Amino acid sequence: MSIKVNDKFWERYFKLIRDEMIPYQWNVLHDQENITIDKERDDENIPSEKSHAIQNLKIAAGLAEGDHYGWLFQDSDVYKWLEAASNSYAIHPDEKLLSMMDEVISLIEAAQDEDGYISTYYQINNPKLKFRRLFESHELYCAGHLIEAAVAHYKATGSERLITVSNQFVQCIKNHFGDEEGKINGADGHQEIELALVKLYEVTKDESLLELSAYFLEVRGQDPDFYKKQLEENIENGLSQGPVPTINNEYHQSHKPVMEQEEAVGHAVRLVYMAAAMADVAYYLNNEKMYEACKKIWKNIVTKRMYITGGIGSTVHGEAFTYDYDLPNDTMYCETCASIGMMFFAKNMLKHETDASYSDILERCLYNTVISGVALDGKHFFYVNPLEVQPEACQKDPGKSHVKATRPSWFGCACCPPNIARTLTSLDQYIYSSNEDSVFAHLFMDNEGEINLDKGTVAIRQETTMPYSGNVRFYLELDNINKMRLGIRIPSWAEDFQIIKDGKEVEGKLDRGYLYLEISKRQTVIDVHFEMKAIQWASHPLVRGNQGKVALQRGPFVYCLEEEDNGENLHLNSITNQQVTEKPVEDSALGDIVLLETIGQKEKITKEWNERLYQKYATKEVEQTQLTFIPYYTWANRSSGQMQVWVNKKE
Amino acid sequence: MSIKVNDKFWERYFKLIRDEMIPYQWNVLHDQENITIDKERDDENIPSEKSHAIQNLKIAAGLAEGDHYGWLFQDSDVYKWLEAASNSYAIHPDEKLLSMMDEVISLIEAAQDEDGYISTYYQINNPKLKFRRLFESHELYCAGHLIEAAVAHYKATGSERLITVSNQFVQCIKNHFGDEEGKINGADGHQEIELALVKLYEVTKDESLLELSAYFLEVRGQDPDFYKKQLEENIENGLSQGPVPTINNEYHQSHKPVMEQEEAVGHAVRLVYMAAAMADVAYYLNNEKMYEACKKIWKNIVTKRMYITGGIGSTVHGEAFTYDYDLPNDTMYCETCASIGMMFFAKNMLKHETDASYSDILERCLYNTVISGVALDGKHFFYVNPLEVQPEACQKDPGKSHVKATRPSWFGCACCPPNIARTLTSLDQYIYSSNEDSVFAHLFMDNEGEINLDKGTVAIRQETTMPYSGNVRFYLELDNINKMRLGIRIPSWAEDFQIIKDGKEVEGKLDRGYLYLEISKRQTVIDVHFEMKAIQWASHPLVRGNQGKVALQRGPFVYCLEEEDNGENLHLNSITNQQVTEKPVEDSALGDIVLLETIGQKEKITKEWNERLYQKYATKEVEQTQLTFIPYYTWANRSSGQMQVWVNKKE
Repeated sequence: MSIKVNDKFWERYFKLIRDEMIPYQWNVLHDQENITIDKERDDENIPSEKSHAIQNLKIAAGLAEGDHYGWLFQDSDVYKWLEAASNSYAIHPDEKLLSMMDEVISLIEAAQDEDGYISTYYQINNPKLKFRRLFESHELYCAGHLIEAAVAHYKATGSERLITVSNQFVQCIKNHFGDEEGKINGADGHQEIELALVKLYEVTKDESLLELSAYFLEVRGQDPDFYKKQLEENIENGLSQGPVPTINNEYHQSHKPVMEQEEAVGHAVRLVYMAAAMADVAYYLNNEKMYEACKKIWKNIVTKRMYITGGIGSTVHGEAFTYDYDLPNDTMYCETCASIGMMFFAKNMLKHETDASYSDILERCLYNTVISGVALDGKHFFYVNPLEVQPEACQKDPGKSHVKATRPSWFGCACCPPNIARTLTSLDQYIYSSNEDSVFAHLFMDNEGEINLDKGTVAIRQETTMPYSGNVRFYLELDNINKMRLGIRIPSWAEDFQIIKDGKEVEGKLDRGYLYLEISKRQTVIDVHFEMKAIQWASHPLVRGNQGKVALQRGPFVYCLEEEDNGENLHLNSITNQQVTEKPVEDSALGDIVLLETIGQKEKITKEWNERLYQKYATKEVEQTQLTFIPYYTWANRSSGQMQVWVNKKE
Repeated sequence: MSIKVNDKFWERYFKLIRDEMIPYQWNVLHDQENITIDKERDDENIPSEKSHAIQNLKIAAGLAEGDHYGWLFQDSDVYKWLEAASNSYAIHPDEKLLSMMDEVISLIEAAQDEDGYISTYYQINNPKLKFRRLFESHELYCAGHLIEAAVAHYKATGSERLITVSNQFVQCIKNHFGDEEGKINGADGHQEIELALVKLYEVTKDESLLELSAYFLEVRGQDPDFYKKQLEENIENGLSQGPVPTINNEYHQSHKPVMEQEEAVGHAVRLVYMAAAMADVAYYLNNEKMYEACKKIWKNIVTKRMYITGGIGSTVHGEAFTYDYDLPNDTMYCETCASIGMMFFAKNMLKHETDASYSDILERCLYNTVISGVALDGKHFFYVNPLEVQPEACQKDPGKSHVKATRPSWFGCACCPPNIARTLTSLDQYIYSSNEDSVFAHLFMDNEGEINLDKGTVAIRQETTMPYSGNVRFYLELDNINKMRLGIRIPSWAEDFQIIKDGKEVEGKLDRGYLYLEISKRQTVIDVHFEMKAIQWASHPLVRGNQGKVALQRGPFVYCLEEEDNGENLHLNSITNQQVTEKPVEDSALGDIVLLETIGQKEKITKEWNERLYQKYATKEVEQTQLTFIPYYTWANRSSGQMQVWVNKKE
């Protein structure tokens, strides 16, 4: 499959990534950007003076002197940058970027140990503890990001340099891990290598990579004391001192074997990275039981533990899931990386079954929490994506120190910024999937390319008015085949739709959210119209924070109120039964967007409340007010102020 | 003033304290009670294996060997027990209790250093750092509790043993603290000695104690770097190692001079202990400026930062205030000790001005958050007094680990249990105040005693149906005086009232919430009837969590819904315009209480919600339901379940 996205909405991001994010992040990783690095939450232990990521590699390579600085997983920032740069290069080749990448690759080659190992923290500070503190070491996590960068770079440039580095590291890992006597029989505390190995398999076809991935997935949680025992052994062997910290196995999903996990628990990014890998391994190894396990986790997330914005992770404590229907809007985590992980998970589930319940969520994550993670200037980022913000609370309630009212320039833990860049530049991989005789269209944006089916190729092109309105035209041209099926996802936000093929409206029953068309002419044009109106969503009654409230959505975008448009005290507003109207604007700050407007009500703070906190109940005084909603991803791009997704609904 | 409380409602507590709490707490302090000690929140550093408080004193006294165990302020648990025991002895003399107290007093005498110093942590573990880590050492905090115990013990028994110990410690403190060259020019990180010194002054009339208290109040915040400098000096002098921790001065109200503080910030208990001392010192030293500062802090709390239950402290982080109108119901702190401190503050403000805004709050704290702190069995305690509880959240949301759904037996930090005991046994001190020719009746309960006015004495007796209904009869008998004034507080919960004196209804205008009667006969009987009906309170519109909700109150009691009476998912209930009826019951578990009942509505969780988290908004289905409210202080005395104070109001 080879697809090129040439969509107005998304090309703005590609250009932003190319012109702003990649050079900016390069400078940050080289400690050459004059910025303040924010702690992702109020915690003294977060290293936030500088990135030092390139410098760590230089020190490990013997090209510089000094100590390691930053998190144990600082290397992964470089690998994710490299992956984003490679993807961007594929979209828009550029000699300067190629040489920037080559410089980094040389550094990685130089930093790699003879035996294939790379992890600058352990190489510089603690070589004796390599692979011996897996609960937190992130060595295989970083290996995974190295491998993903290698695959992306190989696909973009044809260069095998990083593939070679990766293969050597994989060999090192194979030498150390496994259920044979004398090897380490466990997995990294942060899942990532599991999904990377499958990507490496996809280009090298080395099946031992799939087996290694399956091994890491299956060994997890088999011995819930694995991490603790490693630490105890280090103390016994004089490699480190006690005491052994309390290890919360749910945090890294090692509390029980993955096949037995039916709920999404622990650190949200780890969970979805793991689940994405499980779905992929299950697909390639035809492991039905593992796919069943994936379905249970998927269902638990999307029916009990996911925000309307596609955000996951209800608490900052462990950046974690909590329990069913616990979705607070103002203390949540909703990490950008976690929604990116949900996209991976959805994409891999679609390999098994074409079901809109996967692709709807994929779209929901992408158009809301994922792109909310980056400012429209490309240089400021959200780690946490709240659904309700009061700037005063972010400053004065220590329990909300992780909730930022504006996007910081960078973070002590900088996982999100390069993750956004690498994901958006690989968007071409999310639009379609295919099997022997069918193409499935999951996302709608201008694009063109070719998709190989069993017996031939189909050239496909979309021309759309998405995401502004719901018109999509498909051009199909068959090559060497006489017929195929095209499955078109009917989005959950489309209350109605029309599909016209050969001048005739196509009737048909939806199959798990897709409408299927038989294509048998060499050239076919299909016109699709999705009704794109403002929808008011309500939450399950057990979601306490959303009781009596609705959230607006139009097309793929969830909307929100911002103080800049609606004045202070957003929580006093109510949506009434007045019509919600659409207003396309070219906003100087927010770009081309469609505003949603309605006449609502706002509760008045009457004089009787002066110097009173409580008084006897009386009917409230309200006044009419104009409510203006903007797409969620555009919030916090103007002045700092309140924001709210869920708004009171006056029945 | 000498008052004896002989009230049915309160005598149950006195008996509980005498028969259960004091012996139980004695056993716990001696590590002789077989209980599990809970951490007050999920924090590995909380010492919770045992109390060890008596053992620490034995070790300091040289009567046992070993290390100190527990918090730096573990000694204060013993002093507060001693104060409670003394107060209880005054109510109900008992030889066995006297000898238990004597044993502890002997231990304290033995533990005291030659120079008067006592603080077992520093005596045992770190003598070189005495008075050198004031930001957290609690040495003067413990001294304060020692002094309060001494005063109570002296008043109850006439014994001066602990007064002597206290005087020696005070002398030690005077030797070390002050603005003279060479002395430590600062105050303890936890206010307490400031109010204790005034109590010692009240019995000894030693005015230097008032000056010392005023000194500690006024030096606070003069140099915001005081605590940091102490730590830096220790490092310079080789007494301890770095690094110096970050010190949050607002936490202990040392961010600016107390006279300039206009908002209640930081650790709630510290703030109210400080404010209570300020009010007292301002009263005795006639310091108008200090009283003005108290009024600002009072006003900020009661008009912006106090829960309807009299709870204060909106966050577990630093057990602290946050910002105006930030009163979340499910993550708050509302520490029992903080509401006890509000009672101290209110009591001392009443010395300046007889204003029902003080005594209403006093009553609100006492009848709600303070007695909610102890189970009806006297052996289980709340540190944190939530307004909304879901047991699942307490277990699975780490941000709510401090919120307990049932009262634990004891806490790692055990400040609250003995604080409740000492406060309730001193209730006689809160009912009345007086000046030269007037008596002011603030609280209503059966009691009798004598109050000295300038020219004579009045014998006073209350016979009441409180807190069950609003009838209060006062018997007054003047001795050596011809006339006096009686001010009767008209509670904010009484929508109407009647006062009959000499068979005639008294008319009159309220003066700051009090009705004044001129008494000129030797014997006078006054009948008061307060209308005691269920009131529905609403919150200021800026209190986000209470929007669209009401809380019920009847008489002094705030009410709540419990799952045991109302089924699960309390948040789905709404109060409608149906009448709220009263139902007195003798409940086997909850004692004599008046239930409030009404026909409300409950939102149904319809089948459409199966396996769905969001769906398009539709009018909700509701069903009629019986709602049964119990007084807040009785919650969590039956099965573990949900609880809710603020309930949806259907307009």
